[in-house]
Amino acid sequence: MELWYTEKHTDTVDFSIKVKKHIYSEESPFQTIDFFESEEFGTFFTLDGLMMVNEKDEFVYHDMITHVAMATNPSIKRVLVIGGGDGGTVRELTRYKHLEKIDMVEIDEMVVRACEKYLPITACKLHDPRVSLYFEDGLAFIHGKVNEYDLILVDSTDPIGPGEGLFSEAFYKDCYTALADNGILINQHESPYYPNYAREMKRSHSKIEKIFPISKVYQFHMPTYPSGHWLFGFASKTLDPIADFDPKAWEAFGLETKYYNTELHTGCFALPTFVKKLLKE
Amino acid sequence: MELWYTEKHTDTVDFSIKVKKHIYSEESPFQTIDFFESEEFGTFFTLDGLMMVNEKDEFVYHDMITHVAMATNPSIKRVLVIGGGDGGTVRELTRYKHLEKIDMVEIDEMVVRACEKYLPITACKLHDPRVSLYFEDGLAFIHGKVNEYDLILVDSTDPIGPGEGLFSEAFYKDCYTALADNGILINQHESPYYPNYAREMKRSHSKIEKIFPISKVYQFHMPTYPSGHWLFGFASKTLDPIADFDPKAWEAFGLETKYYNTELHTGCFALPTFVKKLLKE
Repeated sequence: MELWYTEKHTDTVDFSIKVKKHIYSEESPFQTIDFFESEEFGTFFTLDGLMMVNEKDEFVYHDMITHVAMATNPSIKRVLVIGGGDGGTVRELTRYKHLEKIDMVEIDEMVVRACEKYLPITACKLHDPRVSLYFEDGLAFIHGKVNEYDLILVDSTDPIGPGEGLFSEAFYKDCYTALADNGILINQHESPYYPNYAREMKRSHSKIEKIFPISKVYQFHMPTYPSGHWLFGFASKTLDPIADFDPKAWEAFGLETKYYNTELHTGCFALPTFVKKLLKE
Repeated sequence: MELWYTEKHTDTVDFSIKVKKHIYSEESPFQTIDFFESEEFGTFFTLDGLMMVNEKDEFVYHDMITHVAMATNPSIKRVLVIGGGDGGTVRELTRYKHLEKIDMVEIDEMVVRACEKYLPITACKLHDPRVSLYFEDGLAFIHGKVNEYDLILVDSTDPIGPGEGLFSEAFYKDCYTALADNGILINQHESPYYPNYAREMKRSHSKIEKIFPISKVYQFHMPTYPSGHWLFGFASKTLDPIADFDPKAWEAFGLETKYYNTELHTGCFALPTFVKKLLKE
């Protein structure tokens, strides 16, 4: 018998992974959670059938959501992660010894508990003393907060299901208010290639651009996400990720990374022409 | 009935496209050629079952194989394309009015004829008066040529089947000799993600590095190739793609491109750390 997991990247494009074992399947109050073991990607998990995290390329996503902002402002001390139930974003943050506070707000505690059990590669640092976990709706959590964070990382699912509000204008406004004067917002920004994802990329970007004086987009290679061409948004009140970037300050942290490096920091903001055009629409 | 084309990216990873129509299938003396129509990618063709070119993202590959070198040395006049039977690389080259000679050597005439019929989007410029087509083995064609080209573009299949020799040290040496003193070689450089492709990437790079004083690698997002993370090699005798790059000179050509631009020119050479490490092994 062969067991294959298939994700529909579009109605007419499938991406399939041969599965050694289906190790977990639960309905949480928010979504369906499944864990699998595979030869190529090691352990991976899906939410409502969509690939979230796997052992092979999680380092790409977690490097890129974390280090670009941390290198733009090496003085960041207070960080909020919204979503990110697998723990990989928190793991990268805890490598910065100078961080004082890492709050993580994940709506679905079952995701965190399952990752602690089956995906310790990402969930291994959730007990760092600087980390506080809140199992709440990120939208409600951030509403009303003023100048509490230097950095907000929105590590969300696609804008369907529980992640939908994390792509709304009201949410981005609340992030703006919750950030310090030199605060940075990084958000999951979808992909330019398949039309459904490109539409969400454009919607997200046009909303953030209205709120933040500096609003850029950077790209990376994420082979297990649809098309492999994935983006984060970089929005901030004052800091420019290239003009204000000091490679030496980041290198002084002495962190070894598998994907991010200081050359790539600048390079990843150089977008293909078709992506730039889509973002301007 | 549903008809699906599947490419095995590894033994345990499949990429599948729903097909509207299987419009062509022939055995040439060198390989099996198939053309399909699909909703997401338009017309696409495969060689020995592997995706080569499709209407949706061919612009990425053809921009990146052509314009990086042309922008590094805007004085290039004589170009050799090895492989590239679909014609997309030649199409991009013919946009440079100052080019004097474009030789294309493709071992398999049947690929060219089928692309002329089914894929005019790429094959449309093969009758430009500066273009000479040679239906020969690229290895034999280049052997013994001295200082005949300013640029060689190796637009090959993977190093199995007819493309294999185009990844050999003897071939790269012949390219070196066939190039002018400031000549540039761009070659299909596979991918760092799946082990089979990463092995060929490393082998190719280590061979070229021994022969060319300047040997770099640049990346791009090619969603229909395995992992979507694809590379070209940039090798040259004297010119550095970044130090010797003059964005204004390229912009003066006035070419509209969908993927390439002068910011991306520099950005695409910024490789993830794991890729840099693999290339050093």
